[in-house]
Amino acid sequence: MLDDLKQQVCQANLDLVAHGLVTLTWGNVSGLSPDHTVFAIKPSGVSYDDMRPEQMVLVSVETGETVDGDLKPSSDTATHRLLYQAFDGVGGVTHTHSRHAVMFAQARREIPCFGTTHADHFYGPVPCARALTEQEIEEAYEANTGQVIIERFKELGVDPVAVPGVLVASHAPFAWGKNAADSVKNAVALESVAEMALGTLQLSPDQSPVEQYLLDKHYFRKHGPDAYYGQKKG
Amino acid sequence: MLDDLKQQVCQANLDLVAHGLVTLTWGNVSGLSPDHTVFAIKPSGVSYDDMRPEQMVLVSVETGETVDGDLKPSSDTATHRLLYQAFDGVGGVTHTHSRHAVMFAQARREIPCFGTTHADHFYGPVPCARALTEQEIEEAYEANTGQVIIERFKELGVDPVAVPGVLVASHAPFAWGKNAADSVKNAVALESVAEMALGTLQLSPDQSPVEQYLLDKHYFRKHGPDAYYGQKKG
Amino acid sequence: MLDDLKQQVCQANLDLVAHGLVTLTWGNVSGLSPDHTVFAIKPSGVSYDDMRPEQMVLVSVETGETVDGDLKPSSDTATHRLLYQAFDGVGGVTHTHSRHAVMFAQARREIPCFGTTHADHFYGPVPCARALTEQEIEEAYEANTGQVIIERFKELGVDPVAVPGVLVASHAPFAWGKNAADSVKNAVALESVAEMALGTLQLSPDQSPVEQYLLDKHYFRKHGPDAYYGQKKG
Amino acid sequence: MLDDLKQQVCQANLDLVAHGLVTLTWGNVSGLSPDHTVFAIKPSGVSYDDMRPEQMVLVSVETGETVDGDLKPSSDTATHRLLYQAFDGVGGVTHTHSRHAVMFAQARREIPCFGTTHADHFYGPVPCARALTEQEIEEAYEANTGQVIIERFKELGVDPVAVPGVLVASHAPFAWGKNAADSVKNAVALESVAEMALGTLQLSPDQSPVEQYLLDKHYFRKHGPDAYYGQKKG
Repeated sequence: MLDDLKQQVCQANLDLVAHGLVTLTWGNVSGLSPDHTVFAIKPSGVSYDDMRPEQMVLVSVETGETVDGDLKPSSDTATHRLLYQAFDGVGGVTHTHSRHAVMFAQARREIPCFGTTHADHFYGPVPCARALTEQEIEEAYEANTGQVIIERFKELGVDPVAVPGVLVASHAPFAWGKNAADSVKNAVALESVAEMALGTLQLSPDQSPVEQYLLDKHYFRKHGPDAYYGQKKG
Repeated sequence: MLDDLKQQVCQANLDLVAHGLVTLTWGNVSGLSPDHTVFAIKPSGVSYDDMRPEQMVLVSVETGETVDGDLKPSSDTATHRLLYQAFDGVGGVTHTHSRHAVMFAQARREIPCFGTTHADHFYGPVPCARALTEQEIEEAYEANTGQVIIERFKELGVDPVAVPGVLVASHAPFAWGKNAADSVKNAVALESVAEMALGTLQLSPDQSPVEQYLLDKHYFRKHGPDAYYGQKKG
Repeated sequence: MLDDLKQQVCQANLDLVAHGLVTLTWGNVSGLSPDHTVFAIKPSGVSYDDMRPEQMVLVSVETGETVDGDLKPSSDTATHRLLYQAFDGVGGVTHTHSRHAVMFAQARREIPCFGTTHADHFYGPVPCARALTEQEIEEAYEANTGQVIIERFKELGVDPVAVPGVLVASHAPFAWGKNAADSVKNAVALESVAEMALGTLQLSPDQSPVEQYLLDKHYFRKHGPDAYYGQKKG
Repeated sequence: MLDDLKQQVCQANLDLVAHGLVTLTWGNVSGLSPDHTVFAIKPSGVSYDDMRPEQMVLVSVETGETVDGDLKPSSDTATHRLLYQAFDGVGGVTHTHSRHAVMFAQARREIPCFGTTHADHFYGPVPCARALTEQEIEEAYEANTGQVIIERFKELGVDPVAVPGVLVASHAPFAWGKNAADSVKNAVALESVAEMALGTLQLSPDQSPVEQYLLDKHYFRKHGPDAYYGQKKG
């Protein structure tokens, strides 16, 4: 069932490796079904070397139960599920431990928007969600990881479609997008802007973020009704 | 039409990937026709994986109109065009978001000439053009990106053939050269000297640039009538 | 004799190269036999390019003598042997000069646990063993390298199975695990958390380590009787 | 003539690329003939992509004249020649612009010996030769580059066989060895210890070099009559 989705999600997981964002098995991608009721996700702790579409696990968005697949889904499945429930318009989620994004997460700092590379993908800083409390960790670690992400976007009044990524304090980044492949692209962009921001801060420790009008220009030249980057679809 | 040029420009775009300067689709190379009336440029937002010469778009230097090609040209086309109009002797332009060059651009700092690697390619610091104003961004973002580059070279009295690259504040580098392939080489050199300069400043925060006579020696041993690097042409 | 072990140890040495942890011939992996009496180890100074299982050298855990093989074992053999003697449950040892781990070793600093990437593999900071004295170096350099590692774990009261790696001051990292392959995984994780910690300290020089409860959660979700990461074995 | 030497030198130049030490055409390796009268060196500005042994140029150690080959030798030939003349026991020379070594050269700092990776290859800090004067540059740039290297080793009383590499201020590293292949290994080691030293200084800005007895131990375990690293020759 949903063979196309499994194929896309398997490919997106392999693309994550090709982009150099995965060390050992640290990373997973999921994608939502066309009717938004289930998502396909990478099995837990399985090597990328011989990953196949039929190994992808289908999980119910509503219940979190596995509805198809012989393997256990990623241990981060509950986080993916919460994001699908809370964020309208999100059809793919990617979790990595990519190096530079993790540096910011571990320093518990958001990634400021220092330039157009960032503005092309994230309409504002990439937020950093707070660390979980002891109780939150003990009760439902992965689900509560999703909750602190959702909480942070609400606090900031930020649209997750316009800022398709986040850092979780002391942990690592999550990115999302229209579908699995798009979430991988945003994870690549997130890692890249983290690396560039680190170097920018080394050269200019008090560097201000870009002006709002530059942010607007770059974001809306690629996104929304007036976008003019790329080829016309259809 | 101009199949050779399209072939060269396509290859130069692929070389940019081979040199590790491209993440996702962030980068584009163009090359000028022998009669200087049109340039071939990468189409906008097209994946490098299956790029073919016939996809290159031909654009008029005078009008900026597409004169051949089914796809939209790169969104940065107007910047390329301005540089061809203003800079005599430039036959190829490369735009990237290469990581270390972007760090300097985001820090709004020029790249000082700290050594012979730099002097071999750039006869002086790689300048940083100012950020665009809100009005310049809204009216004609890409053309005005070209204008602030040209303005900066005029202010500094620098010959763009002797300093074949620039950073645009809060954005990224542009490099140029005799033709498309040569502009890619200069983009590679620019990224490399940016990385080396970053480390130099880490080890020696107040490092002075090299003496003028070392700059002269290295630059003129590779460029101009007394050059003795490489093989005799013809 | 012990062809399976030699095959596993040879493969583990090659995996070390594939993970980018080896420069020239700086690195070696060993693995313990099922009856814990001998270990197979890479021969000294042999190129990885044409390494074959039959070149692996078998060494007695009790005496340190070569019991099988035509080549000299790694010059670090005595360190491996000491670790097998002292650390119960360790069936594989990896030594590298991986770059970021060496930076911490040379700075004589332990690697603090700044996040979940670290907590997933090391239950607490990666310790730094003291530098050897002149006498220790002259008398038995490699064996005493093992001794200062063992001494450090005793001082700290740390279980080497829970913290499967160490830095030796002014030298480099050692990692270990259930078997040769597992020790390579821990060497990969050690290098990765060293790199992430370096960047974290650049962004936040006084960064505190993670809370104990986060460390507990991540470590025990992958290790011990209540682990729920990966697939059920058997 | 000297086909074996040309083959070895060509291969050593290609190995330099394989080790990631070459950007564009920045780098060259040479090797001395068995009778020490000529050396083979890479031609100037030739691409590594289709380099062939027969392109290597033979140059006289005594006169500096080309004695065999259709192409111009590397523009750095005079530096290689001076080193063969001055340094007994050196049979290969490698010049690169490897990134981290250049950072130290541009900062005009020697590379301190912070650990065993360094001590295994260089018996003490990697010196930094002074910048050339204007007159030295104008009169004979490449030969005088050799002269300041030789001058620095004399000033320090350092044996170039024990410290087979150097930085030239505001320029880049040179390394040497028994033959072309050995000089490449030392260039790889030099770049690696430069990178590790940079990170060590970031973690510990006032880090002391290693104790003399550790330096002695590591150096003499790999070099000289009591060496016990690697396999017995012959």
